Amino acid sequence: MVDEKTNEQIMKATYTALCKKGYADLTMQHIANEAQKSKSTLHYHYNTKKELFDSFLEYLYYNLETKLETIQAENPVDQLDKTIDFILDYNDSQDYPELQIAILEIKTQAPYNEDFRERLKEFDKLLCKHFEQILKKGKKQNFFKKDINEKNTAMFIITLINGFHTRRIAIGDTNTSFKNILSEYIKDYICIEKTGGGYIL
Amino acid sequence: MVDEKTNEQIMKATYTALCKKGYADLTMQHIANEAQKSKSTLHYHYNTKKELFDSFLEYLYYNLETKLETIQAENPVDQLDKTIDFILDYNDSQDYPELQIAILEIKTQAPYNEDFRERLKEFDKLLCKHFEQILKKGKKQNFFKKDINEKNTAMFIITLINGFHTRRIAIGDTNTSFKNILSEYIKDYICIEKTGGGYIL
Repeated sequence: MVDEKTNEQIMKATYTALCKKGYADLTMQHIANEAQKSKSTLHYHYNTKKELFDSFLEYLYYNLETKLETIQAENPVDQLDKTIDFILDYNDSQDYPELQIAILEIKTQAPYNEDFRERLKEFDKLLCKHFEQILKKGKKQNFFKKDINEKNTAMFIITLINGFHTRRIAIGDTNTSFKNILSEYIKDYICIEKTGGGYIL
Repeated sequence: MVDEKTNEQIMKATYTALCKKGYADLTMQHIANEAQKSKSTLHYHYNTKKELFDSFLEYLYYNLETKLETIQAENPVDQLDKTIDFILDYNDSQDYPELQIAILEIKTQAPYNEDFRERLKEFDKLLCKHFEQILKKGKKQNFFKKDINEKNTAMFIITLINGFHTRRIAIGDTNTSFKNILSEYIKDYICIEKTGGGYIL
């Protein structure tokens, strides 16, 4: 059993090492170096790189869950907007744009690694549920159209976000036009149109 | 200069080897074995794995371009539908579902490999242009709404397709619900609604 402080140190070191090296080239030695611990100390806590990564994905999951809960919003439209913005840019700060690439590497491993696949399913489920809740609240409070199916719409948004991340990595598309198109879709497809021609924002 | 027949043989061998081994683990030897040629013969035509893959991506590009042109459709709605279906399942036949995984691997290499990135940009541009043309034709022939922006809508569809492929690999989502949701979006957002309540199909 790893104590909380040591685990936090190792997880942060994994994060940094992953961003520097990518998943395929990463070794336990790189992570040990980053954590300023010996490789044997690291192996004492985690037998294999695969085991450590399983914990790392769990760590990212709880981080994401906490961050989603702390997004402050005025109403469901604002919450939907801020949540999408947050996930589109998640871990894509100037310091570590590489994490998204490493996560895509992990996704390519998923068909051959059941543990990774199960973790990735949990991420997907977390995001789907979160968007479903926002959409449900927005319908109830009369911000979103009554006829949208919140489950399908949540899955549609998650698919778009996945596509945005993949495309950004593959072709380096960093322009903001996708965000504008997504906003248009949300306004036209999800939000209730005001009779004045504007939208509830 | 590689003659056409030899090139076709090598490209088909690369395709098969890539599907069997994935990009990271693939060697020139694997491809040579698959092509039933010696490794030195392969190196005579292509100096490096990177060079061979650049040609392979070009080969896939022309293949895709040809296949897109041969899709038979009754009208722009049907063409949009069939083209999306084709790309969602492209190279995802029972024989080689692994090609999509290998392509995602190549996408993760793109930030570090300018040649790959340029090739992937060409793929993206080809698909965007193709969807733009379908949307333009559909607007002109009164199948699609006049107020849709064909460039933005094409990019939105491409992003959705990217997301579908990534999500299928990451979480193994093989159900058809996404296709139904995408069809709904196209009916509601792009197609002109008939006064009888139906859509032009």
